[in-house]
Amino acid sequence: MAKEVWVLHGPNLGLLGRREPELYGKDALARIDKRLAALGRELSLNVTSFQTNHEGALIDRLTIAMDEADGCLLNPAAFTHTSLALADTLRSVSIPVVEVHLTNLYARDKDRQQNLTGAAVRGVIMGLGAMSYELGLRALHALLNSPAKRGSRR
Amino acid sequence: MAKEVWVLHGPNLGLLGRREPELYGKDALARIDKRLAALGRELSLNVTSFQTNHEGALIDRLTIAMDEADGCLLNPAAFTHTSLALADTLRSVSIPVVEVHLTNLYARDKDRQQNLTGAAVRGVIMGLGAMSYELGLRALHALLNSPAKRGSRR
Amino acid sequence: MAKEVWVLHGPNLGLLGRREPELYGKDALARIDKRLAALGRELSLNVTSFQTNHEGALIDRLTIAMDEADGCLLNPAAFTHTSLALADTLRSVSIPVVEVHLTNLYARDKDRQQNLTGAAVRGVIMGLGAMSYELGLRALHALLNSPAKRGSRR
Amino acid sequence: MAKEVWVLHGPNLGLLGRREPELYGKDALARIDKRLAALGRELSLNVTSFQTNHEGALIDRLTIAMDEADGCLLNPAAFTHTSLALADTLRSVSIPVVEVHLTNLYARDKDRQQNLTGAAVRGVIMGLGAMSYELGLRALHALLNSPAKRGSRR
Amino acid sequence: MAKEVWVLHGPNLGLLGRREPELYGKDALARIDKRLAALGRELSLNVTSFQTNHEGALIDRLTIAMDEADGCLLNPAAFTHTSLALADTLRSVSIPVVEVHLTNLYARDKDRQQNLTGAAVRGVIMGLGAMSYELGLRALHALLNSPAKRGSRR
Amino acid sequence: MAKEVWVLHGPNLGLLGRREPELYGKDALARIDKRLAALGRELSLNVTSFQTNHEGALIDRLTIAMDEADGCLLNPAAFTHTSLALADTLRSVSIPVVEVHLTNLYARDKDRQQNLTGAAVRGVIMGLGAMSYELGLRALHALLNSPAKRGSRR
Amino acid sequence: MAKEVWVLHGPNLGLLGRREPELYGKDALARIDKRLAALGRELSLNVTSFQTNHEGALIDRLTIAMDEADGCLLNPAAFTHTSLALADTLRSVSIPVVEVHLTNLYARDKDRQQNLTGAAVRGVIMGLGAMSYELGLRALHALLNSPAKRGSRR
Amino acid sequence: MAKEVWVLHGPNLGLLGRREPELYGKDALARIDKRLAALGRELSLNVTSFQTNHEGALIDRLTIAMDEADGCLLNPAAFTHTSLALADTLRSVSIPVVEVHLTNLYARDKDRQQNLTGAAVRGVIMGLGAMSYELGLRALHALLNSPAKRGSRR
Amino acid sequence: MAKEVWVLHGPNLGLLGRREPELYGKDALARIDKRLAALGRELSLNVTSFQTNHEGALIDRLTIAMDEADGCLLNPAAFTHTSLALADTLRSVSIPVVEVHLTNLYARDKDRQQNLTGAAVRGVIMGLGAMSYELGLRALHALLNSPAKRGSRR
Amino acid sequence: MAKEVWVLHGPNLGLLGRREPELYGKDALARIDKRLAALGRELSLNVTSFQTNHEGALIDRLTIAMDEADGCLLNPAAFTHTSLALADTLRSVSIPVVEVHLTNLYARDKDRQQNLTGAAVRGVIMGLGAMSYELGLRALHALLNSPAKRGSRR
Amino acid sequence: MAKEVWVLHGPNLGLLGRREPELYGKDALARIDKRLAALGRELSLNVTSFQTNHEGALIDRLTIAMDEADGCLLNPAAFTHTSLALADTLRSVSIPVVEVHLTNLYARDKDRQQNLTGAAVRGVIMGLGAMSYELGLRALHALLNSPAKRGSRR
Amino acid sequence: MAKEVWVLHGPNLGLLGRREPELYGKDALARIDKRLAALGRELSLNVTSFQTNHEGALIDRLTIAMDEADGCLLNPAAFTHTSLALADTLRSVSIPVVEVHLTNLYARDKDRQQNLTGAAVRGVIMGLGAMSYELGLRALHALLNSPAKRGSRR
Repeated sequence: MAKEVWVLHGPNLGLLGRREPELYGKDALARIDKRLAALGRELSLNVTSFQTNHEGALIDRLTIAMDEADGCLLNPAAFTHTSLALADTLRSVSIPVVEVHLTNLYARDKDRQQNLTGAAVRGVIMGLGAMSYELGLRALHALLNSPAKRGSRR
Repeated sequence: MAKEVWVLHGPNLGLLGRREPELYGKDALARIDKRLAALGRELSLNVTSFQTNHEGALIDRLTIAMDEADGCLLNPAAFTHTSLALADTLRSVSIPVVEVHLTNLYARDKDRQQNLTGAAVRGVIMGLGAMSYELGLRALHALLNSPAKRGSRR
Repeated sequence: MAKEVWVLHGPNLGLLGRREPELYGKDALARIDKRLAALGRELSLNVTSFQTNHEGALIDRLTIAMDEADGCLLNPAAFTHTSLALADTLRSVSIPVVEVHLTNLYARDKDRQQNLTGAAVRGVIMGLGAMSYELGLRALHALLNSPAKRGSRR
Repeated sequence: MAKEVWVLHGPNLGLLGRREPELYGKDALARIDKRLAALGRELSLNVTSFQTNHEGALIDRLTIAMDEADGCLLNPAAFTHTSLALADTLRSVSIPVVEVHLTNLYARDKDRQQNLTGAAVRGVIMGLGAMSYELGLRALHALLNSPAKRGSRR
Repeated sequence: MAKEVWVLHGPNLGLLGRREPELYGKDALARIDKRLAALGRELSLNVTSFQTNHEGALIDRLTIAMDEADGCLLNPAAFTHTSLALADTLRSVSIPVVEVHLTNLYARDKDRQQNLTGAAVRGVIMGLGAMSYELGLRALHALLNSPAKRGSRR
Repeated sequence: MAKEVWVLHGPNLGLLGRREPELYGKDALARIDKRLAALGRELSLNVTSFQTNHEGALIDRLTIAMDEADGCLLNPAAFTHTSLALADTLRSVSIPVVEVHLTNLYARDKDRQQNLTGAAVRGVIMGLGAMSYELGLRALHALLNSPAKRGSRR
Repeated sequence: MAKEVWVLHGPNLGLLGRREPELYGKDALARIDKRLAALGRELSLNVTSFQTNHEGALIDRLTIAMDEADGCLLNPAAFTHTSLALADTLRSVSIPVVEVHLTNLYARDKDRQQNLTGAAVRGVIMGLGAMSYELGLRALHALLNSPAKRGSRR
Repeated sequence: MAKEVWVLHGPNLGLLGRREPELYGKDALARIDKRLAALGRELSLNVTSFQTNHEGALIDRLTIAMDEADGCLLNPAAFTHTSLALADTLRSVSIPVVEVHLTNLYARDKDRQQNLTGAAVRGVIMGLGAMSYELGLRALHALLNSPAKRGSRR
Repeated sequence: MAKEVWVLHGPNLGLLGRREPELYGKDALARIDKRLAALGRELSLNVTSFQTNHEGALIDRLTIAMDEADGCLLNPAAFTHTSLALADTLRSVSIPVVEVHLTNLYARDKDRQQNLTGAAVRGVIMGLGAMSYELGLRALHALLNSPAKRGSRR
Repeated sequence: MAKEVWVLHGPNLGLLGRREPELYGKDALARIDKRLAALGRELSLNVTSFQTNHEGALIDRLTIAMDEADGCLLNPAAFTHTSLALADTLRSVSIPVVEVHLTNLYARDKDRQQNLTGAAVRGVIMGLGAMSYELGLRALHALLNSPAKRGSRR
Repeated sequence: MAKEVWVLHGPNLGLLGRREPELYGKDALARIDKRLAALGRELSLNVTSFQTNHEGALIDRLTIAMDEADGCLLNPAAFTHTSLALADTLRSVSIPVVEVHLTNLYARDKDRQQNLTGAAVRGVIMGLGAMSYELGLRALHALLNSPAKRGSRR
Repeated sequence: MAKEVWVLHGPNLGLLGRREPELYGKDALARIDKRLAALGRELSLNVTSFQTNHEGALIDRLTIAMDEADGCLLNPAAFTHTSLALADTLRSVSIPVVEVHLTNLYARDKDRQQNLTGAAVRGVIMGLGAMSYELGLRALHALLNSPAKRGSRR
């Protein structure tokens, strides 16, 4: 049976395509979600996407995912660097989560050098634009199907 | 014609499988290289691997890669955090480089929170064990074949 | 007449019992609330509990508490360390607030060594599991009944 | 035709007049909004005010403002110092935003010396009580009517 | 049989009532000890108090407590922030220790934000004046009688 | 009778129009002073301007202003960040001073993130080019005429 | 009647004359005490000296001084930089204390740049060898006889 | 023959008596200079005083002092903490200089905890109001007459 | 004639064998002292051991050692990291001192990375359990018998 | 026609030869200026020298140099490390400036490791005594005659 | 059968005897190796020495040592403080390694206060010149022959 | 007889002309070496150039230079900021070394603000492109021929 994968997009990602396109690319979020859904079908994964600017809504959704999803693809956007609450949630959920970023955080400003959520997920993929999401979905697919391939959180 | 991809493994990766296996996994490096070669064939990429414990040798090899390879997969290991010289080389090479790590650097000790090389590559994939390399090869494949998908270095 | 005490639980406390039980204990939140209600009856306090993962909802609730409650027991969880907004609210409310934590923050990671909300409350009790809440309720009871016992915020 | 200006008040500003009046003054927020509306009429600006304690709601509102308003007056209150997400939104919106503060942040505690949102707006006015808002509205009026006067974000 | 609880008061607490009364309250130490003895009788605990300005004497006493007492209530005063030696002793003793403070350390000066001893005890109660001691005694009583309630040191 | 307002321009402002015009704008200082004088007449304020590259001369002038002026508009330029002596003078003068900056200091380099003088004035207006001065003059006008509107220094 | 002045010498001062004489001078402590006694007689002050290497003994002595002396001359030596407990005592004693040092602390190593006790005394005199003590005694004499001359602790 | 002592007062000291009198005392500078002149006559020292708000003028004066004075009493005020140039001059002058402060710098704000000039003088006396100057003059008198008493700069 | 060597054990070492045995080993202190005495006899050294939890007692003992012993073996335990007073004593004593630690300080927590006493002794040996003491005794033996072998303090 | 080069010497350089000669050498400033004039004649440059201890005078002079000189040789001495105002001037002047230092700043104390002015000039030459000036003059000569040789400011 | 011990000397140790002899002593490296070989024979250890200035060569050699040696004596010299790669190798090798230094690192400059390799070895011996090596060899001998004596790495 | 000068180029300088030409200029390294050889002939210096990406090779070469060369021109490139080993070598060599950089390090990123090697050489010349090398060669020429002109290392 197809596994459920939830894609959670954090704050300002709804602005994608309109927001600093030289940095984040020109694709709107809908287009990325469409490509993920297609790739999901190819990999036998049911992909459901969700975007919110509210930290609490992201935590609520992750909490529910523990019961309703098999894995999560998460782009916490700015919350990556400031939300200890979200990192706590990630440490509590038992399903695999892969964090993705459109841009390469290491190459950005100093406010983005501390990563709170990244320390609490299975793996991090960044800097490859929309492809970051696609590789993240492939990673989840592998983690959900072949437990022996799972990387260590540390 | 098949593109050339060089896989460059940094210090101590030759010890893989013997070194802290609970952290880095039980696969020896040769096994990872073999899987990359196979995936390369699938993607029409000629994959050549190289391991060294010498920072200078890594820089030499990257310098040559500018002329002889189409893309690089790089695991700088400990040099990630200390080698400004390697980061300078990465800023100088014109071919795409994707950095990969077996472990999730964000979840490790404070000496690994500064990333010098990561700021100079196209994308970073980490925490997914040997799968980090495989996703990195897929990323390079996409970057080499569909320029429009290329993420921004920033 | 019985005084009103509001118990406000911050983010991820809804996961209690499921979340890192070796750290936070095995009691679910409902069980803690039940014990607090029982102790409240013993002390002639009406105890009402509330949990949210939303920083804004916690601020809203504290704002209302100024008019509708006589005292608050607050576990800000991760917001303890990141929410200057919540600390500002605490500085504005005129009723006594006691902060409680299940774990001993001083014994945890460096991200939990800065305490923004704790600097704005009457007292802090931590590290004693569910008992932290019970002692906090006793403290509020004393503060509400014998003003001379009130500690200084400084 | 009259330009639309949105006034966005951040967390705890609803408590104005009740909250530390020696610091923030005795005027309630409604009184400030009334004066801004009056000044708006004088300057041919339609002024609409909004207060929230939720970071996400502020981001949502700013996102909508891109399409429905001509300029914004923003008092992010405590979010000034902690919300990278809000700063990201400000970097994405194309209409001019002026940040205002009732108090002089430079003269306050060290937690208020880092300013994340201020780095992403057109100008900052602070320390002048309710007058900070009025001067901010005049600034927006000028920015909306005489582009040549616009200051640089840097 | 009644359990033995030792109350250890650190430096300058002998000055209580004379020392900065607006900060530490007007009760002399003897009065606090008397109330603790009374509460002890109520809880079937033999309470013995001891005050010293000497770090070494505090360490000596804690060392003896390992053999002669069932639990300790400790107010390390200024040593809280400077005595790594005392923290080492606390890590070595096998009986439960609860740390108490008259004032709320989070609301005091920066020299009091680092807490060495607090990281090595079972729980910390602070900011509630003499009541901090009384709640600490109740916590010890519970820890000594119902092991299942014991919080984790972490 | 018209109030006296002194406008004090700090180091390098004499170069205005010639100095990094993409940053500071193309208006020469004389043009700004002329506009301030005109606005002053409108507001019944006698406006006198003064520019110097000497920290001591700025201190001398502020010292005299205590006796000869009713208020000051001050752009300390680079001294904003380095002159504790000037900040001491500002703390000593009894007339209201408003600090203005052409650029938005929060959006500039890290050497400009510490603000010594700003902590010692009534209000700060920045990032709005020459308009910063005009709004500052309006603020002074209000402070000099309606004491109840005065913001707190804190 | 002659006032009582206690001179308290901290750790290692008993080694004076033998300890790094190029730094601390060649006078033994006894010689300094003798000169202070002589100067005391001249100023109608009874001077009693005391040396200890024990922080607790210094605190004990200062506590007693509150009742038995009129003023103290204190050289806390290394405790200057490490003893928050001693600083707390100094904040509690109501008689004037002047801190003296043989060497100029500002000209010494970085471990001596933080001064905990100095922030809690009336005045500090340093760098003048044995003369630091003599000037300190003169200062105490003035403070004890002419209250109007007393400096502020701040 | 009488030795020449120059008293150099730094920035804002001309405001003495008018400037934050609760902090710096109510004596005007002229009154302090008069008392120093009187004490100088008593000690057979010609005392000449000089005040400036200009760092350069202070350096010029110290440079001349090398040839025309036998010793200096220096209150660098705010330059204490910011003027490396003045510290360099002090390292170059061969006559003894004693630094004095009206207030106790250790008890003031963090901007005053770094002391550049103090590290380059013979001794420092602070916190004793006008008496700091008088004791400084006595110190100079001793240093000029009995070289054996001179403290070490270190 | 046999040389005198004093072995000084700092705080909590009396708990050895009972204290965190997985970290400090299972040998009680008496057993270590016995082995040192035996090795001393072999090397013609009279070995006398002393343990204290009091910093002042350690300083007193080192001061006496200057006159009564030929060399010292010192394990300052937690004082290693906090006692500037002890480091001052070590700088004053003229006999050779070797510092030893049971555990490897470099591999422990950040509070143990600053070493105050270690900078003031001849050599440091650590991480080798009881053997650290034995090697330290051999080092002292060599230093006392063959001056040419003495290492530099720097 | 001969180009005009201004040599600007900052604070304390007038003391050269008298000031710490083991550090700065024994040549007086006049001798250096004479050698620069001679070398200037050789290179067809009119060399004019100027020394001041006033930061403001240095800024004034550099401002004039924009109109009257073709290039500047600048030794900002201590202002190198503290004068943001001077650095701002340097960023504003359009003629090439080369910074020179007699000593090697990298080998000096930590207060000299931050360089504000150096970041705003064309090149920096240091550690070579008077020769630093001579090489600086040669550099200016080349910059003024062969634009293609000009280094980048970055 | 005799155990194999490899002695690995890091960068610049080949210069021993020529390099800063007041710091590192006058013995050439060959002389130290000879003494170690002799002591090895006494302890039935085959001692082989190796010096290199190449970090990579040191890592290569340690990697081989895992298979060919029974224990290592390592002086990483400057790499102690900068080579995370070498520290990683040390964490991977299963044979005991003791780190030695000729000088006492705690008494040297701040660049030598961080120790990366020391945190990954069994024990550290330093400050005793050539004797550091000899004690290190004795330590290895004991570790190789009596496992019960082995210290903990922590 | 002609003196021998070795020019040592560090990592990535072989890429010169290809590497970020807007930063490092368009000249290839061979062209710089050729100009240095020509200038060497003019100054009667035999100039030999060497480039390597290996830190160890640079150290080896400097070690040999002690015996075979009279002076060195060194561009350590990225090793400037990270190689303590190279700095140690520079402290050991007895011949004069001048450090040169194509770019102005003070104007570059924060990773290049720490300079380890620069603190160990005679002088530093930077920011002047290829001219930095030529001026360095002139400096060496002067140092080798006229000892009195040698600058101090400090």
